[in-house]
Amino acid sequence: MKVWYADDALLPEGWARRVAISIDDHGDIAEVRAGADPEGAERLAGPVLPGMANLHSHAFQRAMAGLTEMRGAPDDDFWTWRELMYRFVARITPEQAQAIARHLYVEMLREGYTAVAEFHYVHNDADGAPYADRAELLLRHLAAAREAGIGVTLLPSLYRWSNFGEKPLAPRQRRFATDAAAILSMVERAHAAAGDDPDVHVGVAPHSLRAADPASLAELVAGLETIDPDAPVHIHVAEQTKEVDDCLAWSGMRPVEWLLANCGVDARWCVVHATHVVADEIATLARSGAVVGLCPTTEGNLGDGIFPLVDYRAGGGRYGVGGDSHVSRSPAEELRMLEYVQRLARRRRNLIADEASPAVGTTLWREAAAGGALALARPMGAIAAGLRADLVVLDAGHPDLAARGGDAIANALVFSGAGGLVRDVMVGGRWAVREGRHPLAERAARDYARAVAALLE
Amino acid sequence: MKVWYADDALLPEGWARRVAISIDDHGDIAEVRAGADPEGAERLAGPVLPGMANLHSHAFQRAMAGLTEMRGAPDDDFWTWRELMYRFVARITPEQAQAIARHLYVEMLREGYTAVAEFHYVHNDADGAPYADRAELLLRHLAAAREAGIGVTLLPSLYRWSNFGEKPLAPRQRRFATDAAAILSMVERAHAAAGDDPDVHVGVAPHSLRAADPASLAELVAGLETIDPDAPVHIHVAEQTKEVDDCLAWSGMRPVEWLLANCGVDARWCVVHATHVVADEIATLARSGAVVGLCPTTEGNLGDGIFPLVDYRAGGGRYGVGGDSHVSRSPAEELRMLEYVQRLARRRRNLIADEASPAVGTTLWREAAAGGALALARPMGAIAAGLRADLVVLDAGHPDLAARGGDAIANALVFSGAGGLVRDVMVGGRWAVREGRHPLAERAARDYARAVAALLE
Repeated sequence: MKVWYADDALLPEGWARRVAISIDDHGDIAEVRAGADPEGAERLAGPVLPGMANLHSHAFQRAMAGLTEMRGAPDDDFWTWRELMYRFVARITPEQAQAIARHLYVEMLREGYTAVAEFHYVHNDADGAPYADRAELLLRHLAAAREAGIGVTLLPSLYRWSNFGEKPLAPRQRRFATDAAAILSMVERAHAAAGDDPDVHVGVAPHSLRAADPASLAELVAGLETIDPDAPVHIHVAEQTKEVDDCLAWSGMRPVEWLLANCGVDARWCVVHATHVVADEIATLARSGAVVGLCPTTEGNLGDGIFPLVDYRAGGGRYGVGGDSHVSRSPAEELRMLEYVQRLARRRRNLIADEASPAVGTTLWREAAAGGALALARPMGAIAAGLRADLVVLDAGHPDLAARGGDAIANALVFSGAGGLVRDVMVGGRWAVREGRHPLAERAARDYARAVAALLE
Repeated sequence: MKVWYADDALLPEGWARRVAISIDDHGDIAEVRAGADPEGAERLAGPVLPGMANLHSHAFQRAMAGLTEMRGAPDDDFWTWRELMYRFVARITPEQAQAIARHLYVEMLREGYTAVAEFHYVHNDADGAPYADRAELLLRHLAAAREAGIGVTLLPSLYRWSNFGEKPLAPRQRRFATDAAAILSMVERAHAAAGDDPDVHVGVAPHSLRAADPASLAELVAGLETIDPDAPVHIHVAEQTKEVDDCLAWSGMRPVEWLLANCGVDARWCVVHATHVVADEIATLARSGAVVGLCPTTEGNLGDGIFPLVDYRAGGGRYGVGGDSHVSRSPAEELRMLEYVQRLARRRRNLIADEASPAVGTTLWREAAAGGALALARPMGAIAAGLRADLVVLDAGHPDLAARGGDAIANALVFSGAGGLVRDVMVGGRWAVREGRHPLAERAARDYARAVAALLE
């Protein structure tokens, strides 16, 4: 047992003063006391917040950041971005995937993410054949997460069809090709590799309604339940209006509407994007208990559109944030973009807040951490007894924290636009980042650069 | 004369290889040659781009970043933000203003801004009386810019009325109170203080159509012409729909429409925000030769709305970016936000680009640098003979530049979301930042923190 002390800490009920956090030998928080005495405890270097969950990651896309910002067709959109993604993914090796993920996870830790949900859909070798170990590429991400020291929820993704109505995959999609049985075998394989590691969780990700037919989807979810009844299920839904149109043509229903009507969506589900939803969908989704996975910087990069978060939250809806294509690795930047886009759409300020929780930075961090925790099925997302000791410690000496306490701390973190506020990051009781440094950073960056150079050759 | 060499340089016609840049003893670029020999030249540490102009700064607002993100009234908007700004500004001292500006300018230099237009409207002491030196507070910004080593265009702002129809100022606006003669005296004073310093320019800023009546505005612009016929004129216009409504009620015309009809708007003008414009205004503004000053992160923070940049640019309109309230100090972040917001509004990608300039990062950097230069009346904004030697050198060893050349460099800078890409920054032939470090950074941050703490007491 070890006790840490902070002058300011974001607890479930809000910012508290003089907080002692006891952490047991398994890396769990044993006790949290406000108004405590610093004596006998080790002082943290500044205010402390719960670690953030990155609830949606396609790690390999990190290497594409900045590579697709070239105007092609006059109607350049998401689908031209996707073309470039295919060319890129055709070549990637297991070693490169691991090097990219490792660097990414180190970057994420340094910004305050303490766990990541890896939604992984590249399963086969470059010829489309299964690797000798069916979960080869998936497990490369487990290895990368362990090297970096970040918590991980592995989500092998079922990608069976190229579009609604069971359209066969295109040749360039051969590396994705799986069926429910293959994904469930990867789940078993991932559990075996994880052992009893409390920082590894496993779920599944039917890629989307266009890539997973209803029977496969049902088989996958039912199969997962037999392995772990609480395991998370993630799915991309309604990111683009084309998907909405295609789904309507296929089923007469909108994607979120179809999902809610047919899949028993509950708190195990993470519905990623859900950008294009109408009032009925918003209300039903909010009541379902699911977490909506918002990826603000990627959705901006892809020009997806704006999720109606204010209405969804008013209906009690849960949400978290994901780096997705990793054009940002900063939870503060994701939350800032999330709020700014809501403001631009509504021409009002301070939208993700309410009377009970008026500070936007505090509200966003607390709600996204809690929602993300649920999506990852990881006991995290708050500084509270029984949860993993995932802590983000800010630099009390940073000029943007000068003379600020409580809510002003989280507001500075999210809205001052300053880098370098995150100083130390703890994952499951172990320091992953100290004084802004990660011990693996230089090596990971070098290997990453080498992998990217090889991919661009 | 000194010659610098870079493997990659963004020149007016696009990215060039093997570029030698000769800089004379006055800090001007004497010659630029592509396909040059590195022999006899000193090598830059990576790809080089022209320095960016920050065309809209209210330096003191830097200290407010993150302080106004608290939900107040249910219809929280720009105008509640403005209330907080007033409370803050009521107390600021000349020493605090200088400390805040110095830290801000150091931060901006480290991100690649090499000059700033300081739109300054706090002129009187806390009781509303003129300082012994009428330009006391304005000149604090000149001092801060010189200490930091950034180019500056001083824009004393005329703030005479509280709203359209010559509504008297409120008591809390007493520190702004000026007339055209007072502003023109500040212009003269600033010229005297600047001497023949090539890194200082002077213009004026009628604050807005609500704060400057037509006669004062005409007097100010005519008076400025007698001092310097090419000096810039900046004005806030149409940032909020309330201003549009008020202007319509006052004049029967929309703000940009009124400005274009009555003020001889030409290339000397920088029209800041111009968020709420209709098709006729967009077309006329684009033809006027004026620069639109876009402040993407501040406009997001304030929930202003989205300027129709794609249409304006299609009409030949010029633009640049400003940090405004300084919730970001990074030109890359401003440009990224600018493009992302356009994408979200139009559900398309790669919008600020065209067949002739397909790379969005290159296009945004080049156009905003050129537009910003015009707005600042500073010979900068490109790497070309006759302009100031304002250079931004990237870190060739950064993993996000691995194996990238040409357009992919600027795309990485703007869209990879990576910090630390800017390595060295030169302003008028002098290095302000080397290896990411500014010699004044620590002291400036300490003084800034002290000033903010005193203001928050």
